[in-house]
Amino acid sequence: MQVNDVVAYIQADRDRFVADLKEWLAIPSISGDPAHAEDVRTSAGWLAEYLRGQGFPTVEVWETPGLPAVYAEWPAEDPQAPTVVVYGHHDVQPVEPLEEWETDPFKPVEKGDRLIGRGASDDKGQVFFHTLGIRAALAASGRQSPPVTVKLLVEGEEESGSVHFAELLRTHRDRLACDAVVISDTTMWSADVPSMCTGMRGLADAEVTLRGPDGDLHSGSFGGAVPNPLHAMASLLAALHDADGRVAVPGFYDDVVPLSDEERELFARLPFDEAEWLRTAGNSRAAHGEKGYTTLERVWARPTAEINGMWGGHTGPGGKTIVPREAHAKISFRLAAGQDPRRVQDQFRAWVAEQAPPGVEAEVRVSGGGVRPCFSPIDSPGVKAARRAMERAFGTEVLFTREGGSGPEADLADILEAPLIFVAVGLDGDRIHAPNEKVEIPLLLKGAETAAYLWEELAAALR
Amino acid sequence: MQVNDVVAYIQADRDRFVADLKEWLAIPSISGDPAHAEDVRTSAGWLAEYLRGQGFPTVEVWETPGLPAVYAEWPAEDPQAPTVVVYGHHDVQPVEPLEEWETDPFKPVEKGDRLIGRGASDDKGQVFFHTLGIRAALAASGRQSPPVTVKLLVEGEEESGSVHFAELLRTHRDRLACDAVVISDTTMWSADVPSMCTGMRGLADAEVTLRGPDGDLHSGSFGGAVPNPLHAMASLLAALHDADGRVAVPGFYDDVVPLSDEERELFARLPFDEAEWLRTAGNSRAAHGEKGYTTLERVWARPTAEINGMWGGHTGPGGKTIVPREAHAKISFRLAAGQDPRRVQDQFRAWVAEQAPPGVEAEVRVSGGGVRPCFSPIDSPGVKAARRAMERAFGTEVLFTREGGSGPEADLADILEAPLIFVAVGLDGDRIHAPNEKVEIPLLLKGAETAAYLWEELAAALR
Repeated sequence: MQVNDVVAYIQADRDRFVADLKEWLAIPSISGDPAHAEDVRTSAGWLAEYLRGQGFPTVEVWETPGLPAVYAEWPAEDPQAPTVVVYGHHDVQPVEPLEEWETDPFKPVEKGDRLIGRGASDDKGQVFFHTLGIRAALAASGRQSPPVTVKLLVEGEEESGSVHFAELLRTHRDRLACDAVVISDTTMWSADVPSMCTGMRGLADAEVTLRGPDGDLHSGSFGGAVPNPLHAMASLLAALHDADGRVAVPGFYDDVVPLSDEERELFARLPFDEAEWLRTAGNSRAAHGEKGYTTLERVWARPTAEINGMWGGHTGPGGKTIVPREAHAKISFRLAAGQDPRRVQDQFRAWVAEQAPPGVEAEVRVSGGGVRPCFSPIDSPGVKAARRAMERAFGTEVLFTREGGSGPEADLADILEAPLIFVAVGLDGDRIHAPNEKVEIPLLLKGAETAAYLWEELAAALR
Repeated sequence: MQVNDVVAYIQADRDRFVADLKEWLAIPSISGDPAHAEDVRTSAGWLAEYLRGQGFPTVEVWETPGLPAVYAEWPAEDPQAPTVVVYGHHDVQPVEPLEEWETDPFKPVEKGDRLIGRGASDDKGQVFFHTLGIRAALAASGRQSPPVTVKLLVEGEEESGSVHFAELLRTHRDRLACDAVVISDTTMWSADVPSMCTGMRGLADAEVTLRGPDGDLHSGSFGGAVPNPLHAMASLLAALHDADGRVAVPGFYDDVVPLSDEERELFARLPFDEAEWLRTAGNSRAAHGEKGYTTLERVWARPTAEINGMWGGHTGPGGKTIVPREAHAKISFRLAAGQDPRRVQDQFRAWVAEQAPPGVEAEVRVSGGGVRPCFSPIDSPGVKAARRAMERAFGTEVLFTREGGSGPEADLADILEAPLIFVAVGLDGDRIHAPNEKVEIPLLLKGAETAAYLWEELAAALR
């Protein structure tokens, strides 16, 4: 296969690719709005039909108790070839505030190199480049099937919490058996600096209640002589970090996979402008965090404990001179590679029990088992193979990022027991989840080109 | 004057005294309820008429922008004699929940030695014993006027915040000129352990706002890399006390009048049951406070910093993984003798400014100038004289207490520039502000006897 054949195919197919994508984008598949449930079903049907037209031998719409996913499979000729699941989603975010859109969110338009419309980047555009990639690869190679078995799984509830996704994966675990999962639902560093994400942080929550007296007490009669749960909460949460900004819960870092020197060096080569970053961080006045790590390392690869909410006593207008009966705090932990949400919750619970001062009763509740972190080392075979494919497409070195947030992607790794490989061409400036979402068409085409090379790279790497 | 003459007079007058008090108690002078404003005026008129009948040469109803006070003056024969203002109030608390009263709150009834009805103890009963006391003293001495000039000031808005009281004092400052102020609106330790209060704590408030980013941030994207105002608030408030439970604001204790060894010894002789006290403190599980002080010392004579309310971030149901933009706390300081509320507020403001971490903007607001503490040392002439009067009436040693709360009494000391002397016979068990308020009639009569001796004791002490 010649690079130029792939490139020539993609260039020749550009207009049809964009026209087809626009047709799909016009379907308002807002999964979070029950009024659009039928549109999500229409979107699934449209995609299934389209994938059949692309030549996928097997295409199915998988129902859930909520909204459907689309599954398509294109087996490799060689039964020994590796199998790769490609994950994306066909549902989109709501469009409010509608008045801030310059064009109709569901009448996609091209402006120069941009395609504007809800879902253009998140995630229909990024699902779509795989269809062009596989066609280009087959056309260029003259083969009838890809060098790996490709299983495309396109979820319909990602923007409404993926509530049935884990169940869907468990139900179809055998069908989805694979050697790696390619995720195309994230971003690159910038149009000029292509990059691959290698993981996402996990998440664990906890809610702390500290109880003192049975009821609010008059601070004149009792103030200064009984424990105040708000003071106890302040002391507890002040002790949650040590002087170096590290989480003080014993055992918290035990399972953390340390950042490798190589990944830190590659992070450091990203053109990061901290002043600009602080502006995006709501004009935060200073960077602040765990000592010994850069801002990018802190948000991508280090675990955190964050107070999301705290309340107790009199919070209305005016004064009320009380010793309040209770104090509350909602806390969440972002987890780095290797950490287990349940274990962190247990560690936190034990720490709170030990910290609570005499006379104050402490309770820790958790809402569930949290989200596991996911991570594929930069020197793992799948990541290296995808990086080669991407470097061939972009013609430049591909750097690495991670994602500080948490997502259902972790379920893919856990339930399918396969490493994740993030291949995406979205940009942070694509205004996903916001008015005037767009995608850069040249980057979608680079994504298609990456996808075209990906299967042979993975076939060699995973065999 | 023979003690027995006073006692005999009071015994002989008992039934008339109780009958007259019941007539006054029947007037529902609830100052906090606008529907009862006219009743408060009726109460003032009734008292004025009653005092005229008692022989007070001057009786006036003093209007305020709200509800009226009653002023009565009985000059000493000797123009060089000291002048004493007696303070009480003729308004009462609301009676809700009415269904919990066993009798009509405004149809006072005697049950054995108890008189039950709203205002029986707080404060009509305690104002009233002065009228019997002065009559008994004059009858026993055969004189036409008391040995000090007595100025009775009976407020009508105490139970609704004394909003016009300071203004009333300023308006009539010349008329109210005096050498001491006797306050009869508090309690004794118990029926068996008569005691005098020597002061009340002051009060200063402050509200702290800590600001981070312009808006709530996604904790996945930014958590662990920018300052979290809730963490900053927890650290700030955790640092408000040192390991010994002392307030860590520099200068906070500079002006505090230390407890004398004698007062501490006298406090220690009060039969204090800490387990019982903890039950009254909302079943608090432990006593807690400034190291080196007993519970009574902590609530009566030591200053405190208490968080009354704290809030920020997501406080509703469920989770929200944010770095919140703001954190808030309401704080109040109970002030010990010698402290100035404005100075404490300034010290706190300076401390917050110094403590706020980089990247967090701190603001401290105060609602006003607070309430000054008031205190008369146990060895001051007025307190010693009143103690002698009380010991003569009760026939036993009188111990000392203080009041941990704060009240408009401080205005009397400040505006009239006179020491306060607390002479009261109420009990903590009198259910003031609650259903079934009562007073022990024998204690009211002891109050009258104390009042009968008080003027000659003060005449000698203050001359």
